[in-house]
Amino acid sequence: MTTSPHITVLCGGVGAARFLRALSTAIPPSHITAIVNTGDDTVLHGLHISPDLDTITYTLANAIDPDRGWGLIDESWRTLEALHRYGQVRPAGSRAGSTWFGLGDQDLATHFYRTARLQEGASLTDVTSEIASAWGLDFRLLPMTNDPAPTKVVVDTNDDPGAAGDGQISFQEYFVRHRHSIPVRELRLGASSAQPTREAIDALTTADAVVIAPSNPFVSIGPIRALPHVDQILAKRRTTVVAISPLVGGDAVKGPAADMMATFGFQSDSVGIAEIYRDVCSHLIIDSKDTSLAAEVELTGMTTTVTNTMMGDTQVDANLARLTLAAADIAS
Amino acid sequence: MTTSPHITVLCGGVGAARFLRALSTAIPPSHITAIVNTGDDTVLHGLHISPDLDTITYTLANAIDPDRGWGLIDESWRTLEALHRYGQVRPAGSRAGSTWFGLGDQDLATHFYRTARLQEGASLTDVTSEIASAWGLDFRLLPMTNDPAPTKVVVDTNDDPGAAGDGQISFQEYFVRHRHSIPVRELRLGASSAQPTREAIDALTTADAVVIAPSNPFVSIGPIRALPHVDQILAKRRTTVVAISPLVGGDAVKGPAADMMATFGFQSDSVGIAEIYRDVCSHLIIDSKDTSLAAEVELTGMTTTVTNTMMGDTQVDANLARLTLAAADIAS
Repeated sequence: MTTSPHITVLCGGVGAARFLRALSTAIPPSHITAIVNTGDDTVLHGLHISPDLDTITYTLANAIDPDRGWGLIDESWRTLEALHRYGQVRPAGSRAGSTWFGLGDQDLATHFYRTARLQEGASLTDVTSEIASAWGLDFRLLPMTNDPAPTKVVVDTNDDPGAAGDGQISFQEYFVRHRHSIPVRELRLGASSAQPTREAIDALTTADAVVIAPSNPFVSIGPIRALPHVDQILAKRRTTVVAISPLVGGDAVKGPAADMMATFGFQSDSVGIAEIYRDVCSHLIIDSKDTSLAAEVELTGMTTTVTNTMMGDTQVDANLARLTLAAADIAS
Repeated sequence: MTTSPHITVLCGGVGAARFLRALSTAIPPSHITAIVNTGDDTVLHGLHISPDLDTITYTLANAIDPDRGWGLIDESWRTLEALHRYGQVRPAGSRAGSTWFGLGDQDLATHFYRTARLQEGASLTDVTSEIASAWGLDFRLLPMTNDPAPTKVVVDTNDDPGAAGDGQISFQEYFVRHRHSIPVRELRLGASSAQPTREAIDALTTADAVVIAPSNPFVSIGPIRALPHVDQILAKRRTTVVAISPLVGGDAVKGPAADMMATFGFQSDSVGIAEIYRDVCSHLIIDSKDTSLAAEVELTGMTTTVTNTMMGDTQVDANLARLTLAAADIAS
C-alpha cells in the first residue's frame, strides 16, 4: 500500500491510550480513529465525566500523569479536599459530596466544558472532537454512542450495603470506590439499548483495518460490541480485524480483566481472550511471555503474532505498531 | 422583652452578610432568619450557583475573602485557569468554557454539593440548611424560593452584542461579565412567577421584627418583594419592619444601586430608598453622612434613625444592631 492506511481502534482507557500512541509511530494520527467506550461515563457533582475519553485525550496530549496513569500531570486537589466538609453533612441516602472519585482541579475544566456543551444540546461526538482539538490532537476520537449507555455491575450486597436491592452499582462505584476488589456477579451493559453513532459505524465500515486495543474485553470492549450492528460489521470484515491481548502471563497489565475472565467462564489468559474475540476477529497479538499459548490460540481459529506487548518503550511501541499493521496485511 | 426576639432579615449579598454578622452581636444567631435573594442564581458549567447565599454563608463563617468581598479566603484558581483552553475551541454561539465568572477551587465544592443534592431531588431550602450546617452556622438561612426565579437585565444591544434580540442578558452577565458598568433599561424579575417557600412565609409572618438589609432595593430586595404574598405580609406588619439604607452620601457602598435609582426614576439617596420601601416599612436607618436627609425621609411617612451604617468595626456593628432592634421597639 503506497498511501498510509486508515485504522479504526476499539478502545477502553489506559491500554488503548498507549496503543494509540504506539500506532501513531507508524501512521499519521489523522489516519487513526478511536471508537471509545462510554459505558464508564458517570455524572458526579452534576458533571458529565467520560473517564476513557479523558484518559485517551490526556495520554495522546502527553499530559497524563505517568505515575497514576489517569488524570493530568502537575495536578492539584483543592476542590476535592474542600468537598470533605460537605460529605459530613449529607443526609442518609445522599451521595452528594462524595470524594472517592478523584477529580483534579485542572481535570475539572474538561468536565465543565463537556457538561456545558451537552446542556447546550451538542452531541458527545461534537464535544469530544472539540476537546481533542483544544489539546491539539490530530487523532480522531469518537465516543461509541451519543446516548447514555451506563455499565452496571451486580455485586454481593454484603460487599456493598449501599447497593440497590439486587446488588446493582455503577461501574465507577465498582471500579474506583471498591478499587475493583469485590467479586462481580453480573454485568449489565446499557450499551445494548443505545445506538452507535453514524461516525462510529462509518469508521468501522470504511477503515482499512480495525484493531481491538489491549483493553478489558468485558467492561471496555464489551460495551462497544454490545451496541447494535457493531458485532455484525466486525464479523463481516473479520479478516481485517486484529486484536491485541490485554493479558500477559495470565494477568492484566492493569485492572480486573483476569478475575472477570474466570467469573464469566473463560480461561484467564490469551486463549480465553481468543475465545471471546474469535467470531469478530481473525488475528490475536499475544505477548512473548505467552509464546507457549500460541498453538492453543490458533485452535480457536485465529492466527497469532507473538511479540513484546508491554508498551512504553519507543522501540517496543514501533514494533507493536508495525506488527499490528502487518497482521492486517496493510503494512504502511 | 425578656427573651431574645426573633428577627427575619431580607437579604442580598455583601451588605446583608455584614448586617447579619452585626445583628448577631445583639441576639443569638439561632434567632436570626435570613431570607435570601436567589434571583442572582445561575447555572454555569452545569453547576447551580447561588451567589448571595454563598456570600452570606462564607461571611458568617468568617471564611470570606475580606479584600474581594466574595469567595473564600486562601482561594486558588486552577480550574478556571485550565478552562481557558476550552474557551478557545468552543463554537460560535456557545458559552461553554466561559471564564468571566470567578469560581475558586475551594468554592467549587459548594456548587458541587448544591448541584448534586438538587439533582437528587432535595429542595434548595434543605440544601442551604445543610451547607450552613457544614460551615457550623447557627443562623437560619433560607432561599426566598425553591423555584427558578432568574433576574434578567435588559441592556442596549450595542453594549452587549451577544444579548438576545431585545437586549436581555442574565443578571450575572450584567453584574460580573460587564462589571455592572453598562446602563440597565429594564429588570425582569423571574421571582414574580415563582412561589416563596413555606419557611420564608412563616419567618416573615412570625418574626418579632423584619429587617430589610442594606442591599440593592431593585436586584437584591426587589426579587424577594416580587414573590407572591411578600409585600402584602410586610404591609400588614409595617410597624415592625425596619430598613437600613444601602446608600451613603448618595452612593452605594458597593454595586450599582445608585445608578439604578436614577434609571428607575428615584432620587439617588436615602430619600429615594424611603420612597421604595414606604408601603412595607415604617422606619429607615440612614447613615450619619445623610443627617440632612432625615427630615425629607420622614415626609414619606417613615420614621428615621441616623447612625454610622458603615459596618466592619465591632463598635459600629454593635451599635447598628442595637439601634435596629430599638427601631422595631424590641430591644433585646
